[in-house]
Amino acid sequence: MLSINQKKYINSLQQKKFRAQHGTFLVEGEKMVEELIQSDFEIEFVFVVKGNRVKGFEAIEINEKEMKSISALSTPSNFLAVAKQKKQQADLSKSNFVLVLDNVKDPGNLGTIIRTADWFGIHAIVCSNECVDVYNPKVVQATMGSIFRANVTYVNLLEFFQQNNAIPVYGAMLEGENIYEKPIQDKKAFLLMGSESFGISKELTPFITNKVMIPKFGGAESLNVAVATGILCSAYRQKNQ
Amino acid sequence: MLSINQKKYINSLQQKKFRAQHGTFLVEGEKMVEELIQSDFEIEFVFVVKGNRVKGFEAIEINEKEMKSISALSTPSNFLAVAKQKKQQADLSKSNFVLVLDNVKDPGNLGTIIRTADWFGIHAIVCSNECVDVYNPKVVQATMGSIFRANVTYVNLLEFFQQNNAIPVYGAMLEGENIYEKPIQDKKAFLLMGSESFGISKELTPFITNKVMIPKFGGAESLNVAVATGILCSAYRQKNQ
Repeated sequence: MLSINQKKYINSLQQKKFRAQHGTFLVEGEKMVEELIQSDFEIEFVFVVKGNRVKGFEAIEINEKEMKSISALSTPSNFLAVAKQKKQQADLSKSNFVLVLDNVKDPGNLGTIIRTADWFGIHAIVCSNECVDVYNPKVVQATMGSIFRANVTYVNLLEFFQQNNAIPVYGAMLEGENIYEKPIQDKKAFLLMGSESFGISKELTPFITNKVMIPKFGGAESLNVAVATGILCSAYRQKNQ
Repeated sequence: MLSINQKKYINSLQQKKFRAQHGTFLVEGEKMVEELIQSDFEIEFVFVVKGNRVKGFEAIEINEKEMKSISALSTPSNFLAVAKQKKQQADLSKSNFVLVLDNVKDPGNLGTIIRTADWFGIHAIVCSNECVDVYNPKVVQATMGSIFRANVTYVNLLEFFQQNNAIPVYGAMLEGENIYEKPIQDKKAFLLMGSESFGISKELTPFITNKVMIPKFGGAESLNVAVATGILCSAYRQKNQ
């Protein structure tokens, strides 16, 4: 059974304002909910459509219609959880390679970047305050579970680079140096990726120590930011295994 | 002015069945419509919201409400065109490196793959018949204009590989060889990418001559197919500039 208050509360979590107010977020799908239960995130509720089960947490059974009324997905699954947000801090001493995202607005892109970074064993992700909220349901789903292993923080990037000016900053720019000829050699480094529409903010370019560019052979004006991040993370790992 | 018949017709193009019947598709957004006009695709209509213009084609002026009624976007732009589909044939003699997609279902992924391939100057893309329609509005938009430079064909992949068995087939598989240690050396090759959920179909694996794998360092179970395609296209270009 789903109470009216639960329904109202869960629906409100589709909006950033209410997620921030409650400090919680939505997780949907069997695999995602299983990964959540195995993670160190705290869980508030797990709802399953009658006939389904999860291991390791006492789920509330609801019917399909009720699930549809609380799901943020166009095709709801049989599993939905509410978890507590983690207030994370960027721990640069633990991480060699840190991904820094400037103004990444598209939820699918941020989610895919977190998933890609997780594949390459890169757990520290520092976002500018203008980036989309990591607990947005579309971001969470696009991470495919990698959100539970990532350390994502939001900062003022200008201050962040001022405070951490001893670490080399690789910035992805069209006018950078060919990544095939000048690979990412530094084990400890920041990789700065700009926004989908405007690239890296002008105020941040003075902090870039190494401008890098993925060579272009055809007609496309740019690469998708998640694809470009994947290629550069891979380039890093090719030199730093 | 938008006629009732135009509205009905344009709305029908959101469905594959009617796109196939009419042999046309939708293009939205100022930049996309500009790229369409500069391309060698034939154009049926261009609609603009009053006060906007395009160069090189006589546009029909409509109001914002009318634009909203024909747009497939949640946030309509001021520009919408209807273009004729191209019946393309895979011309393997013209292309060295050919991307082969098995069962890629997500429109955003196919669009991003076409954009990424275009960046790397890879124009021939062969899709299994199960892949999402390249003229799906979400695919078209995600290509960011690269659809106008791509050669995308739909085939039975089993027959395709039987007929083209002299060309090496690189297949992206978790159990493949480390791409950093065994790069893609063949200038003329197929790169076969599997579906988001199931990887490469079993019936196609016998055609793979080189199983390749992007090394994993973290916890993610898989990479997004567009990201993985980008990394492998980049790996190809690193050796074949």
